[in-house]
Amino acid sequence: MLKIPDMTIRRLSVYTRCLLQLEEDAVKTVSSQELAERFNLNSAQVRKDLAYFGEFGVRGIGYYVSGLRTELQRILGLDREWAVALIGYGNLGSALFHYRGFTKQGFRIALIVDDDPAKAGREVDGVPIVPARDMAPEIRARAVQIAIVAVPAEAAQSVTDQLVAAGIRTVLNFAPARLRVPRDVRLQHVDLSIELENLSFYLARGSR
Amino acid sequence: MLKIPDMTIRRLSVYTRCLLQLEEDAVKTVSSQELAERFNLNSAQVRKDLAYFGEFGVRGIGYYVSGLRTELQRILGLDREWAVALIGYGNLGSALFHYRGFTKQGFRIALIVDDDPAKAGREVDGVPIVPARDMAPEIRARAVQIAIVAVPAEAAQSVTDQLVAAGIRTVLNFAPARLRVPRDVRLQHVDLSIELENLSFYLARGSR
Repeated sequence: MLKIPDMTIRRLSVYTRCLLQLEEDAVKTVSSQELAERFNLNSAQVRKDLAYFGEFGVRGIGYYVSGLRTELQRILGLDREWAVALIGYGNLGSALFHYRGFTKQGFRIALIVDDDPAKAGREVDGVPIVPARDMAPEIRARAVQIAIVAVPAEAAQSVTDQLVAAGIRTVLNFAPARLRVPRDVRLQHVDLSIELENLSFYLARGSR
Repeated sequence: MLKIPDMTIRRLSVYTRCLLQLEEDAVKTVSSQELAERFNLNSAQVRKDLAYFGEFGVRGIGYYVSGLRTELQRILGLDREWAVALIGYGNLGSALFHYRGFTKQGFRIALIVDDDPAKAGREVDGVPIVPARDMAPEIRARAVQIAIVAVPAEAAQSVTDQLVAAGIRTVLNFAPARLRVPRDVRLQHVDLSIELENLSFYLARGSR
């Protein structure tokens, strides 16, 4: 299969959000130039990114907003529901559990894993909390395909090893720790300070 | 000033982390090819990104790891400390307050804003929590330059308006809400589901 740059996939998510906004505004068709101008994108980049997946533009018209949005959601796997296991139900885990953006995009948290005896055995909004030693059968029973790791840095590697042993091949890591996984496991690391660094770049630039 | 793509700045953060890793491994010099291979980057992109800021490579040697790391940190404004106000001290706010990555990069939370009467008036690790109506003088007194918005979506616009009125020009928004700000305010939106969509893209692709 063709190697598609990670940044292209990230931008597909952005384009999908732009198209949803245009649909809200009852816009039916849009050219790559209009899309770029309105949302501060690069029109050549838009065309190049989309070209990985097919020929979506119509000469003299541009893109059909709703048709392209549907296509991009299908490409991104957002036309179905994914069962997600949330590992760690501390402050961050709890915030992620209640984050509305996930459900909206089809990511349903079906299982919570936490070893804290005050939490394990309870349920949150109908979702069971189980200790790590019990997670493998629950992951299989609930057909979980994605795990979100939101435990403290020092616990992240060990819980990730347990996830891999339980058959998970897709991990989103929020812990500020570098994790080792086998080659067939896709690991995505979220580094929240990168967003702040983008802002400090401009602050530093302005002060020079 | 030259317009620098946002993605370039984001990648500078990534390069900085790669260089820190090389320093840990006692690597002294690295070529753009070696950097690209080891960290799965694009070597032409690395050279192009760095070229916005100067000529860092030395012919026949490559980059001096520690020198380039220092330069990138300076460019990203990470060679100093920034005072940050955290707006909202619920689950997400509390998780962000304790997120070690921020302090490590020089972002110091100097003020917390929360209207909950059970929280306002208290202190967390020496940082005061004040209600929104009292934030303007505190923001000035503590020389806060960056605000992190971590309130529920429905409260996000109103608190952002108050931040702008208090003189804040740099906002990082975690609330799943589209915010309006004046043109001279730099607003960065963190959409946590984009990371999950990158993973579901590959899951969907594998299942086709």
